[in-house]
Amino acid sequence: MANIFEVPQPGNDLVKKADQVRLASIKISQTENQNRIKALNFMADYLEKNSKEILEANNEDYISAEKKGTTKALLSRLKLSKEKLNSGIEGVRKVGDLADPVNQVQIKREISKGLIIERKTVPIGVLGVIFESRPDAVMQISSLAIRSGNGVILKGGSEANLTNTAIVKALQQGLGKSGLDENAICLLTSRKDSMSMLNLEKYINLIIPRGSNELVKFIQNNTRIPVLGHADGICHLFIDNEANLEMALSVALDSKIQYPAACNAIETLLIHKDIAPVFLERAIPLFNSKDVKLIGDKRSVELGIKYEASLEDWQTEYLDLILSIKIVDDLDEAIIHIQKYSSKHTDGIITENSNNANKFMNIVDSAGVFHNCSTRFADGFRYGFGAEVGISTQTLPPRGPVGLEGLVTYKYFLKGDGNIVDDFSNGKAIYTHKDIENI
Amino acid sequence: MANIFEVPQPGNDLVKKADQVRLASIKISQTENQNRIKALNFMADYLEKNSKEILEANNEDYISAEKKGTTKALLSRLKLSKEKLNSGIEGVRKVGDLADPVNQVQIKREISKGLIIERKTVPIGVLGVIFESRPDAVMQISSLAIRSGNGVILKGGSEANLTNTAIVKALQQGLGKSGLDENAICLLTSRKDSMSMLNLEKYINLIIPRGSNELVKFIQNNTRIPVLGHADGICHLFIDNEANLEMALSVALDSKIQYPAACNAIETLLIHKDIAPVFLERAIPLFNSKDVKLIGDKRSVELGIKYEASLEDWQTEYLDLILSIKIVDDLDEAIIHIQKYSSKHTDGIITENSNNANKFMNIVDSAGVFHNCSTRFADGFRYGFGAEVGISTQTLPPRGPVGLEGLVTYKYFLKGDGNIVDDFSNGKAIYTHKDIENI
Repeated sequence: MANIFEVPQPGNDLVKKADQVRLASIKISQTENQNRIKALNFMADYLEKNSKEILEANNEDYISAEKKGTTKALLSRLKLSKEKLNSGIEGVRKVGDLADPVNQVQIKREISKGLIIERKTVPIGVLGVIFESRPDAVMQISSLAIRSGNGVILKGGSEANLTNTAIVKALQQGLGKSGLDENAICLLTSRKDSMSMLNLEKYINLIIPRGSNELVKFIQNNTRIPVLGHADGICHLFIDNEANLEMALSVALDSKIQYPAACNAIETLLIHKDIAPVFLERAIPLFNSKDVKLIGDKRSVELGIKYEASLEDWQTEYLDLILSIKIVDDLDEAIIHIQKYSSKHTDGIITENSNNANKFMNIVDSAGVFHNCSTRFADGFRYGFGAEVGISTQTLPPRGPVGLEGLVTYKYFLKGDGNIVDDFSNGKAIYTHKDIENI
Repeated sequence: MANIFEVPQPGNDLVKKADQVRLASIKISQTENQNRIKALNFMADYLEKNSKEILEANNEDYISAEKKGTTKALLSRLKLSKEKLNSGIEGVRKVGDLADPVNQVQIKREISKGLIIERKTVPIGVLGVIFESRPDAVMQISSLAIRSGNGVILKGGSEANLTNTAIVKALQQGLGKSGLDENAICLLTSRKDSMSMLNLEKYINLIIPRGSNELVKFIQNNTRIPVLGHADGICHLFIDNEANLEMALSVALDSKIQYPAACNAIETLLIHKDIAPVFLERAIPLFNSKDVKLIGDKRSVELGIKYEASLEDWQTEYLDLILSIKIVDDLDEAIIHIQKYSSKHTDGIITENSNNANKFMNIVDSAGVFHNCSTRFADGFRYGFGAEVGISTQTLPPRGPVGLEGLVTYKYFLKGDGNIVDDFSNGKAIYTHKDIENI
């Protein structure tokens, strides 16, 4: 927050572009479900039609990045294979299959005779999406934005500029073909614009950052616009003394190694002191065989863990095959450790004792609290949301994996026949507050 | 946001207090509905028992404030009559009658065989409430906080310190009598603490400011904690050319004068040029008879409005018997004016043409969009929420008048029998995503 003045003010060009997106977003917010589905199908069609052009653009980006000595990890995220593109296109169509998040009636109530209130979901307005590399994110985020009736301003990593430009061109052609305003999707390609976006609070209603922890933290600290997402994902798994040993080993391993770079992988394993000797006897060779580096507190070092943990280990999201281990006296100590170090993303317990499980799940204040399953399930697709815009670790909703519902808000529609409040103070009218069925 | 460094860091005493509230809030978050209702009844009982002490404390506060030359308006808000206290006590009991906002199952779904996800509402944690004068707010906010299973840290105006202390003592006695932790309600009495609260982001999950626009703006700009509320309430009413003239006059008058100091009173009346002459011919003497000062644009001055408006008038929340008037060419111009100047609180249209009404309601992006009724209905009680913690003008939920649902969030509870994600990549398990009925 202190750094807000590092962010440049938007130039006239950017403000003009943002205003065009805002106007287009108002138009798309008024469209019927069928129009938005049609638009998604045309967007997918044009991605197919232009696929040669898109892949060639990606190839150029790749060669330039390679020449610049870009890291292997970034190169692999940048690379858009024919398969990745096709699966992206299929993804765009699938977003069309998801239930319409807009115009859902949440409340319908007679307030007084002739005075009816409805609360209905409406699009948020304009989304600002900042992401690194991964050109597939352009297709995914744009389709979610259009599905939910929003406009979107995208800023990707400059190393993918040619690819992103080709993809957005196809998406805009699809929008235009379906009769919607092409300006509903806008791509920014200069780094300066990406930063000044953070000062566009009059035009952008929600920022969605997709990238490194550093990027997310910078954005959270440098904008007045609400940010949907999370920086750290420090997830814990607690092995209770009443855990099933085989289950504990299997879930711990899956939670760590199934995809260590994911935010829902665990960084710290907490183990009840009574089960620690038998658990570690089995776990150490198991994790070693999977090349996981184990770092433990004093007590676990005494039980065979090679490296001793420092305070920093409990605060670190390794995103790698590294796991910190702490032995605790009881469930309470495990909960206290989690309250102190968890990033409130997802924390789990393995136990056969349902009282312990309930206590853990009720007290631990994270978006996801898991019992006897892998933390890796913390994901919008796995929860059954069809698609996910991100995972939020803030306390207020939307919290946890956020599907389309995170891209809509609601407003109150009140219709009367001349009703005035003064009539209620002099007894001419009364409040009835009757919910109306068949919503 | 630039001013964040004006806020002092919390001292050790305050941190210790806040931690006690946090611990108490964890306990209360685990209580059953019946316990919280019981607590509210005991809180009301102790307010009754201690009413003599409370009224005496208020009398002392009042005398001191009078001596200091406090304004009449503030004195009248500070004064706690026996009637005001009784109605506050009745309010505490009524909050007990509201439906439990906690433990509501929003999603219950089988993800895969043996793996069940539930999304349930949970308390937010600790609320930080900053309010000016009005000792009745202590009773109202505390009872809403306890009803929703939250802890609360209160900071009132220093002129009401004795009253607030006496009220909080009674509330804590009630909590204790019911078996809940008295620390769930905490009162701060020094101004320094009130400011440093804004830096307690590790202990406070939501700030609720109740006071002047300046107070709210200061808080919004000086904390990383989410803030529920609004600063400005610049509401508009548009009189369409197809309006029923009698209705337009009656609703415009009610929207302005029924309680001009309220945030949902209108500040600006927009009038279609075709109806402006007949409307103003009737409206000017009507508003004059109620001592409303009318300030208009050039065109309305030509039609008899005495004072000419400046740019500032369209941006001002008068909170007084003053109304700015602008004549517009058509519905579109009215919408554009509202998009530019509305604080997104509540804006209304008067028309017999339902197409115009729908266009207005769909495009105007305010928390409340009203057709043929007074903007003064924008209120949690009138909407049928039973009680209101505030009105939010942000775009993301909670938006508009916020009842108890603004004081809860949700989390995801996932229960399995050893499920791991790896089994889904090798075909040993499949996602079923079946919603479970009877929730």
